[in-house]
Amino acid sequence: MLMAGQRGAWTMGDVVEKSLEGPLAPSTDEPSQKTGDLVEILNGEKVKFDDAGLSLILQNGLETLRMENALTDVILCVDIQEFSCHRVVLAAASNYFRAMFCNDLKEKYEKRIIIKGVDAETMHTLLDYTYTSKALITKQNVQRVLEAANLFQFLRMVDACASFLTEALNPENCVGILRLADTHSLDSLKKQVQSYIIQNFVQILNSEEFLDLPVDTLHHILKSDDLYVTEEAQVFETVMSWVRHKPSERLCLLPYVLENVRLPLLDPWYFVETVEADPLIRQCPEVFPLLQEARMYHLSGNEIISERTKPRMHEFQSEVFMIIGGCTKDERFVAEVTCLDPLRRSRLEVAKLPLTEHELESENKKWVEFACVTLKNEVYISGGKETQHDVWKYNSSINKWIQIEYLNIGRWRHKMVVLGGKVYVIGGFDGLQRINNVETYDPFHNCWSEAAPLLVHVSSFAATSHKKKLYVIGGGPNGKLATDKTQCYDPSTNKWSLKAAMPVEAKCINAVSFRDRIYVVGGAMRALYAYSPLEDSWCLVTQLSHERASCGIAPCNNRLYITGGRDEKNEVIATVLCWDPEAQKLTEECVLPRGVSHHGSVTIRKSYTHIRRIVPGAVSV
Amino acid sequence: MLMAGQRGAWTMGDVVEKSLEGPLAPSTDEPSQKTGDLVEILNGEKVKFDDAGLSLILQNGLETLRMENALTDVILCVDIQEFSCHRVVLAAASNYFRAMFCNDLKEKYEKRIIIKGVDAETMHTLLDYTYTSKALITKQNVQRVLEAANLFQFLRMVDACASFLTEALNPENCVGILRLADTHSLDSLKKQVQSYIIQNFVQILNSEEFLDLPVDTLHHILKSDDLYVTEEAQVFETVMSWVRHKPSERLCLLPYVLENVRLPLLDPWYFVETVEADPLIRQCPEVFPLLQEARMYHLSGNEIISERTKPRMHEFQSEVFMIIGGCTKDERFVAEVTCLDPLRRSRLEVAKLPLTEHELESENKKWVEFACVTLKNEVYISGGKETQHDVWKYNSSINKWIQIEYLNIGRWRHKMVVLGGKVYVIGGFDGLQRINNVETYDPFHNCWSEAAPLLVHVSSFAATSHKKKLYVIGGGPNGKLATDKTQCYDPSTNKWSLKAAMPVEAKCINAVSFRDRIYVVGGAMRALYAYSPLEDSWCLVTQLSHERASCGIAPCNNRLYITGGRDEKNEVIATVLCWDPEAQKLTEECVLPRGVSHHGSVTIRKSYTHIRRIVPGAVSV
Repeated sequence: MLMAGQRGAWTMGDVVEKSLEGPLAPSTDEPSQKTGDLVEILNGEKVKFDDAGLSLILQNGLETLRMENALTDVILCVDIQEFSCHRVVLAAASNYFRAMFCNDLKEKYEKRIIIKGVDAETMHTLLDYTYTSKALITKQNVQRVLEAANLFQFLRMVDACASFLTEALNPENCVGILRLADTHSLDSLKKQVQSYIIQNFVQILNSEEFLDLPVDTLHHILKSDDLYVTEEAQVFETVMSWVRHKPSERLCLLPYVLENVRLPLLDPWYFVETVEADPLIRQCPEVFPLLQEARMYHLSGNEIISERTKPRMHEFQSEVFMIIGGCTKDERFVAEVTCLDPLRRSRLEVAKLPLTEHELESENKKWVEFACVTLKNEVYISGGKETQHDVWKYNSSINKWIQIEYLNIGRWRHKMVVLGGKVYVIGGFDGLQRINNVETYDPFHNCWSEAAPLLVHVSSFAATSHKKKLYVIGGGPNGKLATDKTQCYDPSTNKWSLKAAMPVEAKCINAVSFRDRIYVVGGAMRALYAYSPLEDSWCLVTQLSHERASCGIAPCNNRLYITGGRDEKNEVIATVLCWDPEAQKLTEECVLPRGVSHHGSVTIRKSYTHIRRIVPGAVSV
Repeated sequence: MLMAGQRGAWTMGDVVEKSLEGPLAPSTDEPSQKTGDLVEILNGEKVKFDDAGLSLILQNGLETLRMENALTDVILCVDIQEFSCHRVVLAAASNYFRAMFCNDLKEKYEKRIIIKGVDAETMHTLLDYTYTSKALITKQNVQRVLEAANLFQFLRMVDACASFLTEALNPENCVGILRLADTHSLDSLKKQVQSYIIQNFVQILNSEEFLDLPVDTLHHILKSDDLYVTEEAQVFETVMSWVRHKPSERLCLLPYVLENVRLPLLDPWYFVETVEADPLIRQCPEVFPLLQEARMYHLSGNEIISERTKPRMHEFQSEVFMIIGGCTKDERFVAEVTCLDPLRRSRLEVAKLPLTEHELESENKKWVEFACVTLKNEVYISGGKETQHDVWKYNSSINKWIQIEYLNIGRWRHKMVVLGGKVYVIGGFDGLQRINNVETYDPFHNCWSEAAPLLVHVSSFAATSHKKKLYVIGGGPNGKLATDKTQCYDPSTNKWSLKAAMPVEAKCINAVSFRDRIYVVGGAMRALYAYSPLEDSWCLVTQLSHERASCGIAPCNNRLYITGGRDEKNEVIATVLCWDPEAQKLTEECVLPRGVSHHGSVTIRKSYTHIRRIVPGAVSV
């Protein structure tokens, strides 16, 4: 299917952006309040007089007294200058002076008080401000005024300086301002500067000052999805120059700051040549787990999921989840393959499923109840309705389906899982009965060989891998409607064993492993369950409004996306739910153009430079 | 093209094995010699009497004297036993006793001599053997007899024991025998045992004794191509258990023994999970270069070539060089792609070039003067005659050609090179003139982008990468027949510079980088030249009998294979030459079914389990 696209802008297969925004983010506006004024009580006899303007008059009066050095009862000595002012005014305007004058301190009685920590000019500015509400903040004095205002607790002046600084932010001064905010724990200013640095990271990372950034700030900035980098290598090099700036002091901090560098997203060659060979990295054994995670990700792809495998917003790649084939209303079969990008809220159709573009609809292959999985960013699909042997893999870079070696045993309602960088095809239905056969694929030799068979023959079960073990959950066994058994395979012993059973017997279910739990959904369960391999225990995560038999579930953008399925009345469902494990919240993400069930759903990393012209007839027989 | 094959046995596209064996290995048989006897001199008067049997009679006589203790002039005291014998007999049979009795040593005069280092029973056996030529070697006494015979220099007895041991070799005793041979520096026995261990490695590596193997022997055994392992992982695990057996002593030897483990051939996942994570490996910084080589090989394939990237004989994979397309006699174009395996002396045709199987010959694409290179074991081909833009890649595991993104600038007589895990397309001819444009391919984004252009516009040049730099050699520049310029690109500076010029101006040439030199052949040079990037100097390697314009050259099995080309009379050549850098020898390897020139020639690692049924129509549009 020919897709045309402008350079740099993602266009949808068909316009959906509107529908995506629709029901989800209603903006609320607070009614704005006008400043108070003369308010009459209705019954006419009494008047609540609220003279908003009086405070200004009062203040002018105080200023005039100060100008005439009248009734002044304290002299603030700063450097060589002396400022006479009124204790009561200072106490009213500043908690610092309030504490000084109202508590039983010696200053309470002294006529002349020596003030440290501020220069005369800044004192002059602050006193003028106190008595006139006016002050001239300039690039030259803002830092001194802010520090003094913070010291004497002139909080409104502190905010004024902070917003002055926020406006004046530029690549050269932002780090300095950040340190200022840090030392005086001005949290809102700090947040503003941090998001400025995040947005303008590329211009800032080369500045000298950046190298003096405190470690926590650096750690926080590097964690952000919105960090404006097009290549993760820029992030790695920033961290390394930051450490190299003060090696003795900062080598021990390397694991902490490296934690937020998304090493798996680095170009594999760059990773080997620059990261692996970096002398500091080689001297620091604690970073080993981070290196191993990246090494395994380069070999296996999504089998390794962590906050470091999610592309950042401005990198030319995006984590997307796919809806592959399946069937829709009135049992029509779906040949389309759709990529959904929750971060950019876009939907894109890619190359149709193989053997689905014959003139005669009846000749088209029905990709239903097949199995699918991602290995090294390629989507493998196998088998399908009526005991198929076919195996194809989809390469999203070249947007093509490519056939690989047939399965030894044709099957459907089975599952595929990636474990230790190898694809496993597990169980399913061979047209006669449920089978326990398991096959693994060797990509170099392009051949399937048998692995240890299941303990219980099942079909329409859920399956996924988690920390070097493979889990097969529930499904329909021979001679029974459904089972609650959890079967677990350990490749190091090549043995299957039973783990804690599910809370319910269920089939037509799907599972994904995310962070340290396995999530299961579908069947007649009307709920999302989670299994903890560590504790070998199950728990209910959340109820669902409807049954979702044969729905899809895929981890993407640090959330779980549940797609389609069949409700209690066996109707196809078109909505996509989103479960946010951190916020523990279930939301309806969007509505698909049409309902779908018995489809495949996986996650891949998709290139986002632009859609180049892709010409049919692109692969030889 | 459907290829059928039995399980486990490679069958040729067409029977060729005969022709390969033909002209190359004539076996010679030495005439056998009969033992000497009575020889008459022709003229009848004198007879040269050579009584071969006399020595036996003499020996029996001496034995009888010994039995009767007659004329015995020395008593050898061994433990509590005494052996009286004749000095002259002992001296004649053993250099040890000759030295003892003939030199001015005290033993020369002593009647009774105490003999150390041998037990009575063994002495008895040796003396019987000396006087009767007979001895009974058994499993129980062979070690003691051999040690004594070696001590007393009964060399024929030593050999007899050695061959007894060689016959009796089994997985349990071979290591012991090897140590025996080692300590007594019995080189021939040592060699025999080493080759026994190499042939039966899998059974032996688990034996306890294996862990006591001396380091040099282990190092030697692991180096062998014939080491009987089907998976390189078996070699790695052997080395690690050998080191772990005496860690304190052997950790420092790890880099030395690991040197002969072919880490690049390990399954990439096994490499990350087991090798990278091994505690001893992580404690040993000196192995870093070996790890880096494997990491880069997993990313880039043949850009990294060393003794460790060549599969061993019994592993289910083989290094093969390919002959791709080109043209043959009377300008007919070749659509076939052939793999030649020098180790197994086999030739196999694989999937034909893309777009070459139309009914109408004229519609077929003419794959001539295109460029080709291997990246991550996939063969990339681009452009070709009449300014083509096509780019395809061949995956040998699934035996398919797959189209990828077009070149920005169509070209032919250009070259492709892999550098830093990236494919570069360089210069060439765009139908009008030679160009200096260089493009690089990003596999993830499937797009070509421009890189720094050549200094000199050239076509039909030679090009290769060597230790992180790219070299463009000779070729036809605009306005001149040929050039001798060597252009060098350094990606770290993104700059081209000129290096030492070739000894001759030449075009229609090809180059490969092998170990620390770049070899160039072809054009009208009638010779193979080599360039040393280290010394930036050229030298003549060897003359060739004919010109070989537009021939192919590929490194395989630690040798260089030069294929086809055009001779002085512009006739296509069918022979394949082999240059062995170690032996500095040029040999004619084999003759192809037909001559070929302007073809592509690269090296890949090919799976050797078996040819499974590969069905046409295997890739979706």
